[in-house]
Amino acid sequence: MPLHDPLPELVELPPGFAAAGIACGLKKAGALDLGLLLADRAVAAAALFTNNELQGAHIAVCREHLLRSGGVVRAILVNARNANCATGEQGREDARRCCRELALRLDCPTEHVLMASTGPIGAPLPTQRIVDHLDALVAAATPDGGMAFARAIMTTDTHAKAANVVDADGSHVTGFAKGSGMIHPDMATMLGFLLSDGSLPADPEAARNELRRVADHSFHRVTVDGDTSPNDSLFLLARGTATELPARHHQQLVDVSQRLARMIAADGEGATRLIEVHVAGARDETEARTVGRVIATSPLVKTAVAGRDPNWGRILSAAGRSGVPFDPDRARVWVGSEVVFFHGVPHPEREGEAHRHLATSDQVLLGIDLGIGDAEARIWSCDLTADYVRINADYRS
Amino acid sequence: MPLHDPLPELVELPPGFAAAGIACGLKKAGALDLGLLLADRAVAAAALFTNNELQGAHIAVCREHLLRSGGVVRAILVNARNANCATGEQGREDARRCCRELALRLDCPTEHVLMASTGPIGAPLPTQRIVDHLDALVAAATPDGGMAFARAIMTTDTHAKAANVVDADGSHVTGFAKGSGMIHPDMATMLGFLLSDGSLPADPEAARNELRRVADHSFHRVTVDGDTSPNDSLFLLARGTATELPARHHQQLVDVSQRLARMIAADGEGATRLIEVHVAGARDETEARTVGRVIATSPLVKTAVAGRDPNWGRILSAAGRSGVPFDPDRARVWVGSEVVFFHGVPHPEREGEAHRHLATSDQVLLGIDLGIGDAEARIWSCDLTADYVRINADYRS
Repeated sequence: MPLHDPLPELVELPPGFAAAGIACGLKKAGALDLGLLLADRAVAAAALFTNNELQGAHIAVCREHLLRSGGVVRAILVNARNANCATGEQGREDARRCCRELALRLDCPTEHVLMASTGPIGAPLPTQRIVDHLDALVAAATPDGGMAFARAIMTTDTHAKAANVVDADGSHVTGFAKGSGMIHPDMATMLGFLLSDGSLPADPEAARNELRRVADHSFHRVTVDGDTSPNDSLFLLARGTATELPARHHQQLVDVSQRLARMIAADGEGATRLIEVHVAGARDETEARTVGRVIATSPLVKTAVAGRDPNWGRILSAAGRSGVPFDPDRARVWVGSEVVFFHGVPHPEREGEAHRHLATSDQVLLGIDLGIGDAEARIWSCDLTADYVRINADYRS
Repeated sequence: MPLHDPLPELVELPPGFAAAGIACGLKKAGALDLGLLLADRAVAAAALFTNNELQGAHIAVCREHLLRSGGVVRAILVNARNANCATGEQGREDARRCCRELALRLDCPTEHVLMASTGPIGAPLPTQRIVDHLDALVAAATPDGGMAFARAIMTTDTHAKAANVVDADGSHVTGFAKGSGMIHPDMATMLGFLLSDGSLPADPEAARNELRRVADHSFHRVTVDGDTSPNDSLFLLARGTATELPARHHQQLVDVSQRLARMIAADGEGATRLIEVHVAGARDETEARTVGRVIATSPLVKTAVAGRDPNWGRILSAAGRSGVPFDPDRARVWVGSEVVFFHGVPHPEREGEAHRHLATSDQVLLGIDLGIGDAEARIWSCDLTADYVRINADYRS
């Protein structure tokens, strides 16, 4: 299997949505760097933001606007190559001005426009340059603009990230994401956008809880380096409202989000392998997730995968320091489909198959059964390579 | 300043102690790999062990012996290149046999002998080979054997680690340590040994609490990669007993332990820089330590130092995800002696001096003042280089 599902040329958006991506000179050489998601009318929306104490200016402004609008959004403006973070009150003013200027052109209230920024932090937002390109951006927005948007929001990503689920009954969810470093649950240097023709609760609190449930099973399960960013944001726009979300719509949102989450892990800086950590036999899902996160974050586990070494000892040892009590003598560890540790001792005669899995599969499965219950969880990560170090020793984030 | 204080040819032990290091064929090419610390009579002792759920066999046996002896120790046997971990009941039997055979030769009760092992896990301990060399080991033990012991316990360490503090009144503490990867507070893949002619409380519980107080200010403040090992152990042997420890003796133990802790951080796998993280202005020391650990563990901070980049944004962002609340607009961040972030925005005009500090000093100081209190803490770590990845992608631990 390839590390990434091949991306289509075109991502069909749900009815009533348009998207655009243009170049306004933030990136070099005319690369796309300014994106727009646009609904044909104000629609129900929810957003989740980073838990970091340091937060990008766009987050304060999004919170203001969502509060004032009661959770209704017409458009989201996204710029790359500048995080507008650690820029003080001027940064918040800059983000407000971008939203206001876009709202003028869309003839809607300012609070119906949100903004998201990622890139290096500490530099002033080139606000005038962005404002000067808003007419062109709005003119470029079409139902076919999804891939241009996906490319415009990339920073150190090597691939654009988009996913689509259309059910037999025609109900449709489209998602976009960016992010490849500073990636960790709650959340990543990640921007995520979900567009749906399904329903969201009209109550903003209930809508946000639904988005959190989706993220808990997708974006909150991916880690690249354990570092979170000040700018992480996840948005969901839905054309319908309902007091309760149909189970099928929730599942569509989870499906799209898991695909994006796996793309983010696979595109982790310097990564050569997507790692799926499967924790089984836990007492409850929270403990399974805790163990999975520690394994998925361990530099020793991640370098072992980079070295194609089915190192059951590092997996067991990482689980052992997670704070979740279990008896190693009753645990089982597998790499690919081969159980290489059980009954308290390793079984080197079984490592041949595990070696083959690491050498030949781009998507590596590492598993542990704690032997104390029935709960399980899956976490996505990637290997840690010398290229990760090179990228981050050289990049001023 | 050099990364390491140059090591003396000879480490003088406190009166009444002897040490040895010999080659028994666990390492290649006749390198020293079997070590012994020996007191002239049974002395007061305390030990701390890893919190990992997976624990090396020597730890179970040390616990048994300390319980049976009431905290009294005559000798500690140490082998390199085999962790005797994930070896089941046979592993514990092997460790017991080594202690029993050494006790026979010292004419002391078995429970007065402790053992420590580090190295790759999952392989059976070559017990017979060790036992066959015990006569030679005991014969080699002399008051001049400290450096041979320090070399014999090394695994991936590039330098032997020993430290000595002799006060004006002649009171004397000597320490040894090993460890350079899988290093994290509570604890590291670390073995530490403290020998003192001062006093320890005769009550084993009180003695252990004293050792914990020492570790809390030294070994528990060093991190290389956030991974802990199943074999981490710290031992303290003291020739005297007293109900309460003199403050001066506590300080000697902390001094020796801090020197060893800094040596461990500086010798982190692949490291080119020792990093001291100084957190000030916290509400209490626990919060200061929490923030310091997150900064010191952040791959993005550690790769920035490897790239000689005074990246205040990554320091601030790591602090921001530590779970400790503070207002970034009131925080100050410094690199070396230069404050590069304050009043909520960066000050690029001050980064020249910070660049010089990173380029020219082997011991890098990263600091943050949270601006919410008076407590502070220091944590030691090292940079994350491509060599770390190479070492750990290739080494089967």
